[in-house]
Amino acid sequence: MASFRMGPTTHSVPMSLFQKNRQKTAAALREHGSVKSKSYVLLAGGDDVSFNDTDISYLFRQESYFQYMFGVKEPGCYGVLEVDSGKSTLFVPRLPEEYATWMGKLYALDEFKQMYEVDEVRYVDELNAFFESAHPLLILTLSGLNTDSGLVSKPARFEGIEKFVVDCDLLHPVIAECRVIKSPEEIEVLRYVAKVSSDAHIRVMQFMHPGRSEYEGEAVFLHHAYAVGGCRHASYTCICGSGVNSAVLHYGHAGAPNDGPVRDGDMCLFDMGANYCGYAADITCSFPANGKFNEDQKLIYNAVLAGRNAVLQEARDGVSWVDMHKLACRVMLQKLKDGGMLKGEVDDMLEAGLAGIFQPHGLGHLIGLDVHDVGGYIAGQPSRPGEPWLSKLRFARTLKAGMYVTVEPGCYFIEYLMDRALADPNLNKFIVVEVYERFRKFGGVRIEDDVLITKDGCENFAIVPRTVEEIEKTMAIRKE
Amino acid sequence: MASFRMGPTTHSVPMSLFQKNRQKTAAALREHGSVKSKSYVLLAGGDDVSFNDTDISYLFRQESYFQYMFGVKEPGCYGVLEVDSGKSTLFVPRLPEEYATWMGKLYALDEFKQMYEVDEVRYVDELNAFFESAHPLLILTLSGLNTDSGLVSKPARFEGIEKFVVDCDLLHPVIAECRVIKSPEEIEVLRYVAKVSSDAHIRVMQFMHPGRSEYEGEAVFLHHAYAVGGCRHASYTCICGSGVNSAVLHYGHAGAPNDGPVRDGDMCLFDMGANYCGYAADITCSFPANGKFNEDQKLIYNAVLAGRNAVLQEARDGVSWVDMHKLACRVMLQKLKDGGMLKGEVDDMLEAGLAGIFQPHGLGHLIGLDVHDVGGYIAGQPSRPGEPWLSKLRFARTLKAGMYVTVEPGCYFIEYLMDRALADPNLNKFIVVEVYERFRKFGGVRIEDDVLITKDGCENFAIVPRTVEEIEKTMAIRKE
Repeated sequence: MASFRMGPTTHSVPMSLFQKNRQKTAAALREHGSVKSKSYVLLAGGDDVSFNDTDISYLFRQESYFQYMFGVKEPGCYGVLEVDSGKSTLFVPRLPEEYATWMGKLYALDEFKQMYEVDEVRYVDELNAFFESAHPLLILTLSGLNTDSGLVSKPARFEGIEKFVVDCDLLHPVIAECRVIKSPEEIEVLRYVAKVSSDAHIRVMQFMHPGRSEYEGEAVFLHHAYAVGGCRHASYTCICGSGVNSAVLHYGHAGAPNDGPVRDGDMCLFDMGANYCGYAADITCSFPANGKFNEDQKLIYNAVLAGRNAVLQEARDGVSWVDMHKLACRVMLQKLKDGGMLKGEVDDMLEAGLAGIFQPHGLGHLIGLDVHDVGGYIAGQPSRPGEPWLSKLRFARTLKAGMYVTVEPGCYFIEYLMDRALADPNLNKFIVVEVYERFRKFGGVRIEDDVLITKDGCENFAIVPRTVEEIEKTMAIRKE
Repeated sequence: MASFRMGPTTHSVPMSLFQKNRQKTAAALREHGSVKSKSYVLLAGGDDVSFNDTDISYLFRQESYFQYMFGVKEPGCYGVLEVDSGKSTLFVPRLPEEYATWMGKLYALDEFKQMYEVDEVRYVDELNAFFESAHPLLILTLSGLNTDSGLVSKPARFEGIEKFVVDCDLLHPVIAECRVIKSPEEIEVLRYVAKVSSDAHIRVMQFMHPGRSEYEGEAVFLHHAYAVGGCRHASYTCICGSGVNSAVLHYGHAGAPNDGPVRDGDMCLFDMGANYCGYAADITCSFPANGKFNEDQKLIYNAVLAGRNAVLQEARDGVSWVDMHKLACRVMLQKLKDGGMLKGEVDDMLEAGLAGIFQPHGLGHLIGLDVHDVGGYIAGQPSRPGEPWLSKLRFARTLKAGMYVTVEPGCYFIEYLMDRALADPNLNKFIVVEVYERFRKFGGVRIEDDVLITKDGCENFAIVPRTVEEIEKTMAIRKE
C-alpha cells in the first residue's frame, strides 16, 4: 500500500485516496450527458516557478486539481484518466542520466507506478503517441473561472493535441463538484492538518505576550506545523495582527509583514493554517496579548463567539449557507446591542446592512485542497447574492453532508468603515456613538473554525480554546 | 533616518544604503561612453505571483535589481533614476480607498517618500505623464541574461513608452557590475544575515541526532532565522541531506523534500541560508549525525577542510578565482591520496579531470541580493572555462576587494559518477578501488563559507564550528 508520509510520526496518506478521487470523477463524467464513450481527461501538473530571472524557484507545491487526481509530489507531470474504464496513466518528465548528480536517484517508470498506484506510467514526451494509439473521441482538458481569484485555469496541452477533438469547458464544473464533497480518506487528512494547526495555535498563544513582535508568532506557528506536523507549506500567508492591525483583514502581506509590536492591552488576531499533502487548514484565534480579557475585549469576543456558537448549532445537511451568515450577523448585532453599542431593532440593522460595517467578509468558505476551495459559484448552484452585506460570501449553496467549510464570524473596528457608518444616516441611527468611538483603536476579533458538515449537524476540526475562560486558562501556561 | 527593521532586536538597514546604490549606478552610467545626458533609468519592481489560478500568492519578495536600487517592500512599483542628477522617483500603485479594509493603512505619497528616502513619489499611472514632461533623450530599461538560470530579465514598460527612445541592453552589465562590489552598508547587512544563519546552523547541529528526520533540521533552521533574526525568507530551498542523500547536490527539492531518516553513522550535509531585506546567506555545515566523527568521516571531512583552509589563506584582491578552484581541488586530492584512496601524481589527476568526479560543482559563486549573484560572466570579464572540471564555475574573474563570494569545496560519492570513473581508464588508474568502494554509501561533505574579499585577504562571515574538534564539542551540547 503506497502512501505519502513526511516522517515516521506524521499522517500517512494512502495513495488509494487519489485513486478514489479519480474513480469518482470518472463516474461523474460517465453520468454527464455530453460525455461520449472513448473520452479521456488530460490534466497538467504544476511547474516550478522561478523567482524572477534567477535560478531560485519558489518552493514547489502541486497544482490542486492535479493533486486531487494524482497526489504526485514532482513538478512537470501530466495525468490521463480514461473515462470509460477509470484507467489512469501518469506522464513524468524524462530526465537525462546526469541529473542524478543534482536531483538524486532518478526513478524508473515502474517505481513511479508503485509510488503513486496508477495503472501506467510513461514519459511526458509520449503524450502524443499515447493519444494516437488510444484514438479518443474526446479529450477533456481543464479550463474554468476561479470565482475567488478571478483567474482561469490553463488547460493542458501537448504537441499534436490539435489533431484531436478537445473540450476544455465541460470538465471544470464536474471535477470541482467532486472536490466539494470530501471522502473518508480526505477527511482524515483534513482532520490531521487541522489538529496540527490547532496545536500550533495553542503554542503561539502560550508564547505571545506584550513586548514580543507579531512575526514571532508566525515563526512559532510555522515551526510547530513543520517540525511536529511535517507540514512544509502554510496554506496561505500568516495573518498575525495585534492592536489596530487585528482589524486589517489581509494583514501580513509584504507591505505589512507582521512586523508590529505586541503591546499590553492589545487584542491579537492570528489567522494561520498549515498544509499537509496539499490539504489545508484555516484557523483563527483571537486573544488578549497579556492573557486576560478586559471588559471591552469580552464584549466583542463574546459577541463573535455567540454568532459562531449559533452557527455550529444549526449548520447541517440541507441548511442554506446564506441563512447561516445571516444567523451569525443577527446574533452578533444582538450582543452588541445588549452591550450598549447599538440601539434599535436588530432586524432593521440587518436590513440597513449594518452587519457589513462590523464584518465586511462572508461567514466562511469551502476549504479543501485550496484554502478558498472550488465549487462555490459553479453552474447549477446559487449565484452570488446582490445585497452588499451578503455579496462577499464565497458561496451561497445549501450545505450537504461531506462539505468542509470555515465558520469565521468576525467583528472589526476599521476606521474607514467606522467613518462611513457614522456619516450615513441609515446606519448611524443604530450606533451609540460614545460607546462605538471607544473602540476606534480596538482592532478586531475573528473566530474561525474548520467544520465538516454531516447529515445531522457538523464536526469542528479546530480544537483550540474558544471561551474566555478556556483562553485565559491556556494562556496562564507560558512557554518560550 | 528611515530604515528597514523587522523587529526591535533585528538589524536596522538604513535607506541611505539604497540611495548610495542609486548614486553609484548613476555615476557608472555617466562614465559610460554611450549614455547621453537626459537619460533615465526605468526599473519595474516585482509583482505578486499567484499559486496557479487560486487567490493565494507565493510570499512576495522584491525583485533583486529593484531591491538594490529602491529597497521597497511592496509589489507593483516602478522606479526612475535621472542619470544626470541622480534624482530618484518612486511610482507606487494607486489603490482605491476601500482597500484599507483588506490591506490596512494606505500610505500617502509623502509617507512613502519618508519611508524610502526617495526624491519624489508618484502613482504608477503617472509614468507616461512623468516622462512626457521630462523629455528624456534615452530611457534605459533592464534586460540581460542571467548566466546561472539562462533566463532573461523582463524590461519595464508602461503605456506610452513607444513614444520614447529606449535601450534595454546597456544598463544590465553596468548595474550588475555595481552590485558585484559591496558597499560598507551592504556588508553590514550581509554580516548580519550570515551571523543569523550561522547561529541557526549551530542550533540545528545541537538538535539533530539519529532517529530524527531531515526536515526537522530545516524546521529548526527556518525557525531560528525568523524568530530570532527576523528573516521571513530563506535565500533558497534548504538542502538537508543525510547518509547517501548528502551526495545529492540539490537535495530538498519537491521530489526529495528532506524527508529521509537520520541514522547513526550518517554524515549530515545541511546547506541553508536566511535572507534579510533581500540580502542572502548561503552556508553549509557537514557533521556526523551522532556527534562523533569516525575515521572514514574524518578522512573526507579533513580533505575538504584542507582545501577550504588553503583558499581562505590565499583569496584576496588580485587573485584569480579559477586558481582558487584549482588550489582547493589540488589540496583535496592530495589529502585523499594521503588517506590511501588515490594513487599517482596529483598533477596528473587534475589534468585528467578527476577532481570533477569528487566535486562536480565549482568552488563557489558571487553572493549578494541573489544567492547566485549577478556579475559572473558579463561583458568584459573572463568567459566560462572550457575544461569539464572547470566549466561549472559560476564566474572566472579576478577577485576584487569588496566582492562577496562563497567558498564551498565538497567531496561526494555519487554512484553515477563513481561508476563512470571506475569505467574510465583515464581516471580509474588513480583510484584504489577497495578503498573507494568502501565510500559508495557515504554521501558527501561540503564546507561552505560566505567570504568578503579584501585588499590583503578575506573575511569569513560564516561563524560556525569547522574543525572536527570544534564540531564534536558543539554537538556535545544537545538541545531540543
